[in-house]
Amino acid sequence: MPESEFKNNWKHKLHDIIYEADTRAGKLFDVILFITIVASIILVMLESIKSFDEKYHNFLNISEWVITILFSIEYIARIITVKKPWRYVFSFYGIVDLLSTIPKYISLLFGGIHALAALRALRLLRIFRILKLARYLGASNLLMSAIKSSRAKISVFLFAVLILCIIFGTLMYLIEGEESGFSSIPVSVYWCIVTLTTVGFGDIAPITPLGQFIAALIMILGYGIIAVPTGIVSAEYTAQGRKINPGPEPKIPLNSKSCENCLAENHKDKAEYCYNCGERLYG
Amino acid sequence: MPESEFKNNWKHKLHDIIYEADTRAGKLFDVILFITIVASIILVMLESIKSFDEKYHNFLNISEWVITILFSIEYIARIITVKKPWRYVFSFYGIVDLLSTIPKYISLLFGGIHALAALRALRLLRIFRILKLARYLGASNLLMSAIKSSRAKISVFLFAVLILCIIFGTLMYLIEGEESGFSSIPVSVYWCIVTLTTVGFGDIAPITPLGQFIAALIMILGYGIIAVPTGIVSAEYTAQGRKINPGPEPKIPLNSKSCENCLAENHKDKAEYCYNCGERLYG
Amino acid sequence: MPESEFKNNWKHKLHDIIYEADTRAGKLFDVILFITIVASIILVMLESIKSFDEKYHNFLNISEWVITILFSIEYIARIITVKKPWRYVFSFYGIVDLLSTIPKYISLLFGGIHALAALRALRLLRIFRILKLARYLGASNLLMSAIKSSRAKISVFLFAVLILCIIFGTLMYLIEGEESGFSSIPVSVYWCIVTLTTVGFGDIAPITPLGQFIAALIMILGYGIIAVPTGIVSAEYTAQGRKINPGPEPKIPLNSKSCENCLAENHKDKAEYCYNCGERLYG
Amino acid sequence: MPESEFKNNWKHKLHDIIYEADTRAGKLFDVILFITIVASIILVMLESIKSFDEKYHNFLNISEWVITILFSIEYIARIITVKKPWRYVFSFYGIVDLLSTIPKYISLLFGGIHALAALRALRLLRIFRILKLARYLGASNLLMSAIKSSRAKISVFLFAVLILCIIFGTLMYLIEGEESGFSSIPVSVYWCIVTLTTVGFGDIAPITPLGQFIAALIMILGYGIIAVPTGIVSAEYTAQGRKINPGPEPKIPLNSKSCENCLAENHKDKAEYCYNCGERLYG
Repeated sequence: MPESEFKNNWKHKLHDIIYEADTRAGKLFDVILFITIVASIILVMLESIKSFDEKYHNFLNISEWVITILFSIEYIARIITVKKPWRYVFSFYGIVDLLSTIPKYISLLFGGIHALAALRALRLLRIFRILKLARYLGASNLLMSAIKSSRAKISVFLFAVLILCIIFGTLMYLIEGEESGFSSIPVSVYWCIVTLTTVGFGDIAPITPLGQFIAALIMILGYGIIAVPTGIVSAEYTAQGRKINPGPEPKIPLNSKSCENCLAENHKDKAEYCYNCGERLYG
Repeated sequence: MPESEFKNNWKHKLHDIIYEADTRAGKLFDVILFITIVASIILVMLESIKSFDEKYHNFLNISEWVITILFSIEYIARIITVKKPWRYVFSFYGIVDLLSTIPKYISLLFGGIHALAALRALRLLRIFRILKLARYLGASNLLMSAIKSSRAKISVFLFAVLILCIIFGTLMYLIEGEESGFSSIPVSVYWCIVTLTTVGFGDIAPITPLGQFIAALIMILGYGIIAVPTGIVSAEYTAQGRKINPGPEPKIPLNSKSCENCLAENHKDKAEYCYNCGERLYG
Repeated sequence: MPESEFKNNWKHKLHDIIYEADTRAGKLFDVILFITIVASIILVMLESIKSFDEKYHNFLNISEWVITILFSIEYIARIITVKKPWRYVFSFYGIVDLLSTIPKYISLLFGGIHALAALRALRLLRIFRILKLARYLGASNLLMSAIKSSRAKISVFLFAVLILCIIFGTLMYLIEGEESGFSSIPVSVYWCIVTLTTVGFGDIAPITPLGQFIAALIMILGYGIIAVPTGIVSAEYTAQGRKINPGPEPKIPLNSKSCENCLAENHKDKAEYCYNCGERLYG
Repeated sequence: MPESEFKNNWKHKLHDIIYEADTRAGKLFDVILFITIVASIILVMLESIKSFDEKYHNFLNISEWVITILFSIEYIARIITVKKPWRYVFSFYGIVDLLSTIPKYISLLFGGIHALAALRALRLLRIFRILKLARYLGASNLLMSAIKSSRAKISVFLFAVLILCIIFGTLMYLIEGEESGFSSIPVSVYWCIVTLTTVGFGDIAPITPLGQFIAALIMILGYGIIAVPTGIVSAEYTAQGRKINPGPEPKIPLNSKSCENCLAENHKDKAEYCYNCGERLYG
């Protein structure tokens, strides 16, 4: 076996571990990655609690470095094992993976300047590592297709809600005025959204009888029209379910392999070549 | 070609641009109108923020004049190109279009008297330009018909909710009294609506144990009966969908032309005369 | 025509006017009654506003007397025209009609003692005249039957919600303690209901991190399980609709007559005798 | 009849009374148990109200002892009448029954040390007697199966909501900062959950315009996506109903007997042996 082939073989094995979940090693990798992401998010959260950060600063710093190095290794491994690395680097997950790693290295450069607000924001970027968890949301196909197919209708609905809020917000600004906290139209519209969606903070509340009357109208409206998006999703969801389960249909067994060339997934179990780019599938 | 016919031809072209969205010019007109309306609403909002108004008063004033002139031109063009102008002037959109234009001209007359409350209200009328956006909501036919067909039932439901609120509001007025903020029956009913719709501002909240017990009852009731309008709309929506999609039905291609005489829309693609008034359709 | 028969005839006509809505006089009676009830409720509400009551005390007093006398006449007329008056007197509407009338007469007896709390409560009893409006809710048969058939399931659901609230309320009482406003278990349970139903007054709110964590759990739970009653009603409503509209079924024309003997309603158009007690139907 | 057989017979009768609800004595036992549980929960609640506890301390103490002794008798009777007592002792209800009884006995040991916080918590454990009521929730099979079959989807949905809340919470922490109450990321995430679920306490509320804008986005998002779990449960519930009522199916009469050996329930009316363990069924 020539060296280049051996190298390829080694790459394929690593590719299987990182990108697929069918082998034992692949599953283990997924579990470790999941735990590392969750741990890293908890770290960022704890760091934002001042009293905690002051007490355990060293512990937080070391843990953060451990996680950053783990993510760096993962990032490099992903680049090496994919055939066309640039395609991965500029994909959604490629960018998320990079942004999950660099903030700590940058903080090394400007380490002494702790108070810099922009840097603080940069460090918080690490919280977006949570987007890496989106990989684990893939199972909800029926849900997603129901939301997608009703997206247009829900947009129209939310657009109508926004128009209502602007009109009622302006009305309330006229009726209540600045003494009640309705200090400008944008604030009134904000209050109207708070009320119509039945959130109701109470930081701003109408005082005049007419204002309270209009507020009651807005609430009842919000209570009544919440039925609309629910009805839409409910009906679409039922329709989706019917489309997918119209009778006993033959199920094609798929696996979790992903093509090393184009990253396409959901290959048939028996497939030997990628359905998307024709690249040979290994593993 | 005699002059009158040429003039007619010119009118027809303008009519196509303003009232229809099938040609490139018509689409462009729609996009520009949409942007102008949104810009004008943002202007009114910014004007209501005092600190902003003081800083950028001149910029706001000039922008407002630009938009007002644009709307004036649109209004006049609409009147000219329609065959029966009065029908347009007294239609819903005709009135909205007029009200979108005049406040700025009136402010010219009383320009010096800035503090006049009535004038302030008049200037705010411009926010109702947002109703012009209603033209773009037309796509949601299924949604509207579902709401319409369940309107009667939702009205009965809201009527029952109102009766409940009056009864519980009176009870709370008796139990809590004025110390807790339940200063009169209307205020108590207002609080009851705030609670039943699960908004919950918290500006008024029961203090006595009995009052809190009744409040808990009202909340659970509100939590339970929110299911009713949702169930209605959901069921109606499913029914509407069934009515509309009972199988492969022949689809009649419609276009976005609107009759120059009676403003009727949704003509068949092949139609040469208005289905409503028999007027010839151009374009 | 002997006198007794003439008297009977006169009684029948009055009975038709009061109890039925098929004749013009019957419809007029219904409209006037509806307006009088609404006016009487608005009067009670206005009376509870102190500043208003002080200003327009005489106007309120006179209007209240006019309405009380109208209701007294209606009550007497209803008793006279029904064959078995006692059955009416002790029916739901009979009691409501009586309670709508007497408070004003009683206030005459104790007129001077204005501050008496019990009397104030008695005067407020008049607000329950709103229950007379329940007569106009009859049209919503489909709605009512959907609620009725899902009542058992919703009760089980609310029972489960209550158990959850007691458990979480006790937990919060332990965690937060009295400093945060969770002063006893009943208050904590009240707060838990306020939170789970997504009302959220904010008069009591957790301060400790653990308390906020549990609170977040309760909210997400409440957000998730609001789906349950909605799903139940929605499904029952769809089922009800199917039962009622399974195809073209023969509709039996009913009228709004009510039997003078047993007050039963929904007689067939052609019926000459009451389906319930066999009494002859007039009108 | 030898003694051992007589004893067995006596045990069987007691077993019927405690574990089954088919005989008159069994029903009576269930009703008394239900009332005792509710009374015991009310007692714990009243005890937590300081002013009440000070006034009626003796009454509360005695009542609590009566209930504890009743529960002890029930617990012992349940152990005696079951064939394999250990299986009952370590079952869910066995543990709940034990925990409902011991706190009072332990309080006897440390009776004088009233202020001990841990003891106070222990005494409150008695509130979990409410879990004994779960026995009465068994009727809601359709409901439970609908929730169970949509559990996976709702989990995915709540997981996505949590990710959203962490991202938006971090954003709000950056935008609003500590002055507005967004003192750390966990607190911001807590606020975000409060807002997205439309609870809206108002103890923390955005002040900056950008913060209010993001808050409005979160609310509209929460208002829109509440439709998702509702749609899921609604569709699943309809599907469950269809599965269960596909036509006239033969119903197998079941009874409320429970096996004395393995506690299995839902035996056929004619069954003479337990379907689960083969033990003979008595009664």
